[in-house]
Amino acid sequence: MPEKPPAIPKISHFAAFKKDHMTARIYNFSAGPAVMPESVLLEAKEALLSLGDTGIGIMEHSHRGKAFMAVYEQAVVRCREIAGISSDFEVLFLQGGASLQFGMVPMNFLAAGQTADYLITGVWSEKARDEAVRFGQVREVCSSKDKNFSYIPGQQTPSANSVYTHFTSNNTIFGTQFKTEPATAGSSFLVCDASSDIFSRPIDVSKYGLIYGGGQKNLGPAGVTLVIIRKDLVEKGNKNLPTMLQYRTHAKNESMFNTPPTFGIYVMNLVFQWILDQGGLAAMATKNEAKAKVLYDYLDKSKLFQATAAADSRSLMNVTFVTGNETIDNQFISEATKAGFDGLKGHRSVGGMRASIYNAFPHEGVVELVKFMQAFEAKQV
Amino acid sequence: MPEKPPAIPKISHFAAFKKDHMTARIYNFSAGPAVMPESVLLEAKEALLSLGDTGIGIMEHSHRGKAFMAVYEQAVVRCREIAGISSDFEVLFLQGGASLQFGMVPMNFLAAGQTADYLITGVWSEKARDEAVRFGQVREVCSSKDKNFSYIPGQQTPSANSVYTHFTSNNTIFGTQFKTEPATAGSSFLVCDASSDIFSRPIDVSKYGLIYGGGQKNLGPAGVTLVIIRKDLVEKGNKNLPTMLQYRTHAKNESMFNTPPTFGIYVMNLVFQWILDQGGLAAMATKNEAKAKVLYDYLDKSKLFQATAAADSRSLMNVTFVTGNETIDNQFISEATKAGFDGLKGHRSVGGMRASIYNAFPHEGVVELVKFMQAFEAKQV
Repeated sequence: MPEKPPAIPKISHFAAFKKDHMTARIYNFSAGPAVMPESVLLEAKEALLSLGDTGIGIMEHSHRGKAFMAVYEQAVVRCREIAGISSDFEVLFLQGGASLQFGMVPMNFLAAGQTADYLITGVWSEKARDEAVRFGQVREVCSSKDKNFSYIPGQQTPSANSVYTHFTSNNTIFGTQFKTEPATAGSSFLVCDASSDIFSRPIDVSKYGLIYGGGQKNLGPAGVTLVIIRKDLVEKGNKNLPTMLQYRTHAKNESMFNTPPTFGIYVMNLVFQWILDQGGLAAMATKNEAKAKVLYDYLDKSKLFQATAAADSRSLMNVTFVTGNETIDNQFISEATKAGFDGLKGHRSVGGMRASIYNAFPHEGVVELVKFMQAFEAKQV
Repeated sequence: MPEKPPAIPKISHFAAFKKDHMTARIYNFSAGPAVMPESVLLEAKEALLSLGDTGIGIMEHSHRGKAFMAVYEQAVVRCREIAGISSDFEVLFLQGGASLQFGMVPMNFLAAGQTADYLITGVWSEKARDEAVRFGQVREVCSSKDKNFSYIPGQQTPSANSVYTHFTSNNTIFGTQFKTEPATAGSSFLVCDASSDIFSRPIDVSKYGLIYGGGQKNLGPAGVTLVIIRKDLVEKGNKNLPTMLQYRTHAKNESMFNTPPTFGIYVMNLVFQWILDQGGLAAMATKNEAKAKVLYDYLDKSKLFQATAAADSRSLMNVTFVTGNETIDNQFISEATKAGFDGLKGHRSVGGMRASIYNAFPHEGVVELVKFMQAFEAKQV
């Protein structure tokens, strides 16, 4: 009765690529899940059959045992160190990604009759807003939908009476990024979906009430959501919710009310150590700026390719660009893929190309891409 | 400011153990996360830096790309093959574990004024019930709390008007297991938390409305929840819920409304293949029965150790036992741990010992444990 299962595809072009480059890995520009530091993958590999000398693989360790508890504690301490997170905040490892946070935030904090401010800068901010309207009033403080979300609106006047102000710090699909936090007024606290640029640059956590991010771009594998939340807010959350949807449940139980995604937390802990080894967030920012500059500088000079995001709103994580001719775009993507530059196809709502170059994406990969683009451009003339 | 992160502990006794046994892995009786098939771990290890010859590690592949889509489709097809799941059912891979399902089930199906039947056979059924009472009426069809959940109550008269009947097929903490499904009446559909015995024996899925299980016992790593749900129920679910908490969201989007836990699904797919390679569920049941019998037969003869669950309610997955003397229990656990039998400490609500021997736990591990118990018993006399 059941259909024959499809096999994992052989990507045939890769065999040829490997011969030329003598490496088993290609340049992965995927928007997420995305490239991870090779040193992290190598360490995780060693832990699958035995974590350290425990004789038990990392996925097989009880979350209540000494070995995993040490991993968990390392992850919390390193996360706090990376972003200078004070003891006024909880660091939680949850499940369900940013999409579940879209619902949990208003369920916990927005009662009927209350208002929350939402800054609309892309599809993900819209999705976050759509969950909030189920629970209370939403004021759209600003929107860049008029120009297909190609820019970040200038500083807006915040509502005096909003419970919180929600924004998406980096817009993966449209290649735009906030350069600074939006203003808030009164007791409104800042809520940020930082999924696609978390820990890519220094962040002043004390300005926020709640920061959340799915792991699969800058932090590790899909399936772990990092939540940094002010302790007083944890207590203020709605108590009339399923236990798993209250932040206090996870805060009280150190993210172990139920079995947490242990392997994901383990890998995130390795990524945290890698960030510290790189020199922390200031060093990450310097590297990310230099890396993105290589590509934007070329795009600004190119007669074939143009960046799609407004110059003052450009993301350092997702660089979106087009030729203006869909046929040429497709030809470019096809040739680039064959040459070992994977994941460059842009999101269907923007078209063209997108190079996602998160923390772990190597600088030389961008340099190689630009060389390839230059050669492609030369052929077009 | 931040405390020094604790190191992953070195389990020093293991070095000695390794010398004797010439193996890098020990017997892991953990209740979950739990032991996984070594062949699965070895294959996963190879995929961390490159899935097949894609040049991209399994955690780094886009969930929308060809390679991961093939993994996902394999997982669905294999799951259907293992349990003979007809096209009347959806197979979903969600996040949040059984604990989130405790809330999602009543949120979707139990309206105010309606009644659901709950069979109370342990702490996890109580937790499931506690979420349901937030949304509607709960009738406790039966409870074995009077004897510390040491038995499964006999067949009960179902409510004529209940929306659904919820039970926990295996009680991890108390070592009891249903031998057959509870009765339902009228249009009431059966909902089963099968987290700790799913795919350990044949199952007639057509008897159920919804089966759910966290992955970390019989299916793979923590962080993926397998949900098997009748398609007509998907449509009947409450529409006035956050998008992520509606089953229809995940059914309509093939579990990819948001980024799914890709690595967890990949590993689950390998476990599914392993189950098929073992001969499927009938073969798993034969092996599990033989494996548990080794331990129960010894417990029935032993003058030192006694099984805690009623004979007709014994779990094939979690074997709970005590000596009746806490000091001797602790001495036994300590000596067993030193000898390379890990995770035998019972849950605090039962005390004593628990040997969790899920699908992937090797038969010889139980044989070795019994030898060790016999030697320990001989010393006590």
